[in-house]
Amino acid sequence: MIEVFKTRHIGFCYGVKRAIELVLEERGRSSERIYTIGPLIHNPQVVEILKSKDVIVEEDVRRIEKGTVVIRSHGIKKEEELFLKEKGLKIIDATCPFVKRVRRFAEELKKEGYRVIIIGDPNHPEVQSVLSYLDNDGIVLDQYKKIKGKRLGVVCQTTEDMEKFLDITKRLIEEGKEIKVFNTICKITRIREKEAQNLSRKVDLMLVVGGRISSNTKKLYRVVKRINPNTYHIETERDIDLIWLSNKSKIGITGGTSTPEILIENVIKFVKGLGGSHG
Amino acid sequence: MIEVFKTRHIGFCYGVKRAIELVLEERGRSSERIYTIGPLIHNPQVVEILKSKDVIVEEDVRRIEKGTVVIRSHGIKKEEELFLKEKGLKIIDATCPFVKRVRRFAEELKKEGYRVIIIGDPNHPEVQSVLSYLDNDGIVLDQYKKIKGKRLGVVCQTTEDMEKFLDITKRLIEEGKEIKVFNTICKITRIREKEAQNLSRKVDLMLVVGGRISSNTKKLYRVVKRINPNTYHIETERDIDLIWLSNKSKIGITGGTSTPEILIENVIKFVKGLGGSHG
Repeated sequence: MIEVFKTRHIGFCYGVKRAIELVLEERGRSSERIYTIGPLIHNPQVVEILKSKDVIVEEDVRRIEKGTVVIRSHGIKKEEELFLKEKGLKIIDATCPFVKRVRRFAEELKKEGYRVIIIGDPNHPEVQSVLSYLDNDGIVLDQYKKIKGKRLGVVCQTTEDMEKFLDITKRLIEEGKEIKVFNTICKITRIREKEAQNLSRKVDLMLVVGGRISSNTKKLYRVVKRINPNTYHIETERDIDLIWLSNKSKIGITGGTSTPEILIENVIKFVKGLGGSHG
Repeated sequence: MIEVFKTRHIGFCYGVKRAIELVLEERGRSSERIYTIGPLIHNPQVVEILKSKDVIVEEDVRRIEKGTVVIRSHGIKKEEELFLKEKGLKIIDATCPFVKRVRRFAEELKKEGYRVIIIGDPNHPEVQSVLSYLDNDGIVLDQYKKIKGKRLGVVCQTTEDMEKFLDITKRLIEEGKEIKVFNTICKITRIREKEAQNLSRKVDLMLVVGGRISSNTKKLYRVVKRINPNTYHIETERDIDLIWLSNKSKIGITGGTSTPEILIENVIKFVKGLGGSHG
């Protein structure tokens, strides 16, 4: 008999929901092609559905000649935004307000004369966006490194791992003199992590549902796996290897902030179908 | 056979040396009684020598009617300083410049609208001095406590334990939004701690020489004892219990920043006298 449990907060977060709503509203208004600069959110299933509505992912802003352009939830680079504006294209800004907050704090720190440090993944579009708004006059740290400068200003990627962020900041304070820190980690991802960690203590196996490249899903997976080693990151139920479930009776399910609830419900249905339904 | 080793940095630090020199200079100039508000430094042997030169410890500023008043290395309260000035007494300010730096940063943070947090011992005169310069509008934390307020400004006692300071700060950042931190731990006490910890790894027993109430000596003792459990805090060689030394051949010696070198040399002489002389 298999029992299935899910975490309380599930489905899209505020910023993701808002981004999708903005695009769908525009779809209702216009029949022109809509472009998103990079994937709107880091969930391939959602991106696929949008594609069927003629919402197309375009990585290179220079290749867009007409239509509406949507700035994705993670934000784009300052120079890209300027380019789109100069070209006179219709722009819909779906940047997550919490990402904009990181940018605002980083710019404020720079203005105040701090050497700005962004703790996060240098390859993530959010981090690249923040850095571009500093005219690249900032340092991205994915791990601790000694930084010169008496006055350091610190922000972090909204989906950064709290422990990692605190550890790097702690070491900067240890070496440094004056440090101004904005804890810009998104609260809801923290709440979801804690819920998922709590659930993972009570189950035999945890499934974390979300995009392979979704930063917050990957982090959710990592922090849950620390507690329960039987944790797997899947995009849909098709990624489930049945061998994982042998001799497991209590299954916990959670998902990233860009994972649609329907994908999670599909996983639940699939798992319940394997051995009875409870939870 | 007993071998004795001492750490490289020993004797008075800059602030202590300066405080003593200021008092002795004044003694050379004037034959009037000199008062220090609280002990000039936290070393009873030095305070005793000063007493023999008519430099008297007075805790209550209101009881001083004439003579010269010395503000001790740890600083005094703002209201005490104002009182002395109003009374027109001759004041010699021997406050350690690094303590003044803590006060300056704390005042700056308050002016900028931060809720000011002083990490340190609420009973230590340095911390009380810093707090008084904020007109008591600050919070002293000796351990982590959740603090309300979106903008927190943090300083710490110059002799605070780095790990404790970083741990409390880390937790404030975890809970908080915007935190501005000045790492005001005195560099030389850190260097001395590291030297003493390194030495303690190579010896059978460590003796930490310094005043019983000396904050930096107590901390030195604590951080060394973490590494080598055979560590003892003594004021002079008279505090040594011979049983500590039985079967010990390598003895390490270090001292606080308010410990005169002569006291350390006396300890070395005593220990060497017990079993030969090397090191």
